[in-house]
Amino acid sequence: MTEQIQLINGFSKKSREEKLALVTQLITDTDKALEIYKSFHHPDPKTQEMIEEFSENTISNFHLPYSVVPNFLLNNKIYTVPMVIEESSVVAAAAQSAKFWFSRGGFKAEVIDTEKIGQVHFLWHDDKNILLQKFPELKERLIKEAFEITENMVRRGGGILDIELKDLTDREPGLMQLYCTFETVDSMGANFINSCLERFAETFRHWHAAQKEFTPEGMEVIMCILSNLTPNCRVKVQVETTLDTLDDIIPGMPGAEFARRFRLGVHVAEADPYRATTHNKGIFNGVDAVVLATGNDFRAVEACGHAYAARSGKYAPLTRVETDEYYFRFMLELPVALGVVGGLTNLHPLVKLSHDLLGHPSARELMGIAAATGLANNFGAVKSLVTTGIQKGHMKMHLLNILKQLGVPEDRKNEVVHYFKDKIVSVYAVRQLMERWEVKPATGIK
Amino acid sequence: MTEQIQLINGFSKKSREEKLALVTQLITDTDKALEIYKSFHHPDPKTQEMIEEFSENTISNFHLPYSVVPNFLLNNKIYTVPMVIEESSVVAAAAQSAKFWFSRGGFKAEVIDTEKIGQVHFLWHDDKNILLQKFPELKERLIKEAFEITENMVRRGGGILDIELKDLTDREPGLMQLYCTFETVDSMGANFINSCLERFAETFRHWHAAQKEFTPEGMEVIMCILSNLTPNCRVKVQVETTLDTLDDIIPGMPGAEFARRFRLGVHVAEADPYRATTHNKGIFNGVDAVVLATGNDFRAVEACGHAYAARSGKYAPLTRVETDEYYFRFMLELPVALGVVGGLTNLHPLVKLSHDLLGHPSARELMGIAAATGLANNFGAVKSLVTTGIQKGHMKMHLLNILKQLGVPEDRKNEVVHYFKDKIVSVYAVRQLMERWEVKPATGIK
Repeated sequence: MTEQIQLINGFSKKSREEKLALVTQLITDTDKALEIYKSFHHPDPKTQEMIEEFSENTISNFHLPYSVVPNFLLNNKIYTVPMVIEESSVVAAAAQSAKFWFSRGGFKAEVIDTEKIGQVHFLWHDDKNILLQKFPELKERLIKEAFEITENMVRRGGGILDIELKDLTDREPGLMQLYCTFETVDSMGANFINSCLERFAETFRHWHAAQKEFTPEGMEVIMCILSNLTPNCRVKVQVETTLDTLDDIIPGMPGAEFARRFRLGVHVAEADPYRATTHNKGIFNGVDAVVLATGNDFRAVEACGHAYAARSGKYAPLTRVETDEYYFRFMLELPVALGVVGGLTNLHPLVKLSHDLLGHPSARELMGIAAATGLANNFGAVKSLVTTGIQKGHMKMHLLNILKQLGVPEDRKNEVVHYFKDKIVSVYAVRQLMERWEVKPATGIK
Repeated sequence: MTEQIQLINGFSKKSREEKLALVTQLITDTDKALEIYKSFHHPDPKTQEMIEEFSENTISNFHLPYSVVPNFLLNNKIYTVPMVIEESSVVAAAAQSAKFWFSRGGFKAEVIDTEKIGQVHFLWHDDKNILLQKFPELKERLIKEAFEITENMVRRGGGILDIELKDLTDREPGLMQLYCTFETVDSMGANFINSCLERFAETFRHWHAAQKEFTPEGMEVIMCILSNLTPNCRVKVQVETTLDTLDDIIPGMPGAEFARRFRLGVHVAEADPYRATTHNKGIFNGVDAVVLATGNDFRAVEACGHAYAARSGKYAPLTRVETDEYYFRFMLELPVALGVVGGLTNLHPLVKLSHDLLGHPSARELMGIAAATGLANNFGAVKSLVTTGIQKGHMKMHLLNILKQLGVPEDRKNEVVHYFKDKIVSVYAVRQLMERWEVKPATGIK
């Protein structure tokens, strides 16, 4: 279809209705598509407009299920945790883990530090010793001339923590950087950090030009940008219990045996990056769902966590297990930079409700909540994997999705589910069964 | 608030209305919260129910802006690419890059391979040599006994590619694995792979028990699970042009100078994992937006890409630049496992429209589209960073968000934007200006 279409000009300037008309022309059933896209709009025009303005070229809203996990005990406080995720079983697993640990002391979280990072990357061709010598003077000036930007953040208890000079010339000729650390309190801080960095670059340029020892071509700023890798903006969360409380998690399995198998499951991830990748993916199932529900940026959180997982030179799992003959402890150390002010947090109505539901947590508190949810999901995943396997639960879900997709009427679903109890589920197999049983799709579903 | 609340029992079994009632009791303004959550429901009960059933404990739908990028030229075909993302400027940057490369030959994508991976992890305490010797026999049996599961996939051109025995005993005592590769054609294949693996484990157990050379405790399956790290399910996408066509991208900047600075920008990411993390984050801004819009799993895509970025032992950028005195080439190699059937693809109405809008691409084609969008976003980000800096555009967005948040009336917005042209934007500064200018918030906004 799209091949025959002319180039669309000035798309971004068109109204939403014009955009919708153009886009739906590219879809097989234009009228139906228009109707569906519109049906996903929010009924309140102001809310709809706000959501559209988060992005550009918007024509509709993508709906993801907004769920909650009640009874989440963290640092002796009970939370109802909002989660936004499209993958089945993630919320169910988090809820099961939350319930399980509720009666075993709950989750404990501790923020290790909240340091954010930004860098001014530059090439240096002048005398490096003079730069090193004069750096304290430059640093003072960098901080002073950024005061206009930092003033308000300082008032809120944050600001610039430090500026170091780093030498990367062994990796790229002339490459150096101003490695800057920040405290951004309750904001994720991206705008603040990037504004500071661009101001640093400006000051640096002026300062460099004014020093008689340096040459006009001796310094070139390449770029100014925050780093999403924030190993010192990190939270540690754990659960722990005595082995006897793990008896019969799986009927008939002693707690010590469960702990042994669980530890093996985590050790496999330590031994093999192929497993570590999926192990960590399961952690982010929970983390990202909270990140989305609270209006934070999951790409930033993912990039940070995975790069951190690779810090030793070998991609490794983010959770660890410690167990002996009496005890079981499972913990996650997660670098995660979150905000509770700024960005979507003050705009998206459901994000605002998420923060209200959590009792308006600070950024530090939210770090703990997100990490605890990640740990809860990882506990659930490893527990299933090393005991019953995950397919039992998944195939049931899979079957229900297929029944929905094929439009199997409600009153026939139970017999189909029963039939597949000990059989392999596939679209093909369900379709064959429907033909054999002469089940017709429910009306109104194609 | 939440501290005073009793434990909620049997939450998952309650109706949506009951769940909503319980959850909104925890929010400051219960009635308002109930009204807002409900306003995000889809008007069609069947659609609403379907979205709810993607997950568990659902009470509402989280709306993310659904956008499109027109004029996306890839492999000589024009696409209108759907993107779902909450971060401002991501779609704008992708659209600008798409337009820019449209007149320079567009994007070229090539799928290198589509091999998926799954593993049966086990401990081995029997004679390893006998296992190695008998493995061909075991392998044949593993494949044969999984036929019931693979039959339909084989018919569609996929199935089991190979099963290898891997020895990880140097990393963990006794640890070995069946390292299995699969072709899953147009499905992401998670359910298929996990079903095969659990069947392999069953066959393996029976086979092991039947060999007289082995002992009952000689083999223990730890877990069966697909790996999200799929380096051989990989697509390469690139743009290329002669330097003269890059003249004046930034007014007055020759193409060769732009290319030099762009290359430096990528080299910084090669030299420094702190930069590489954010560099790759920018790639996933684009990739994930397509992944979400097409009903795929962004946690899987993120985990795969970042773990792959760390494969050399040093976390590195996923894009590369090649440039000489005449030429500029920018490319991305991305391992990414996507599906165009199964999961949400046959269920979510907007996902279905996304696939229709893209002309019902195969999984291979979609790999190219997602990767090209990632490359487009990375091109836009690096271009801005090494030339104008990113804050100019971002601060404008930031200011508009603040104006919205503070409820500045439409008719006063322009003067505020004008005022901040050469000033630092912050909520505090805007609030001060509003007081000074005696601007009152628009009615109806708190």
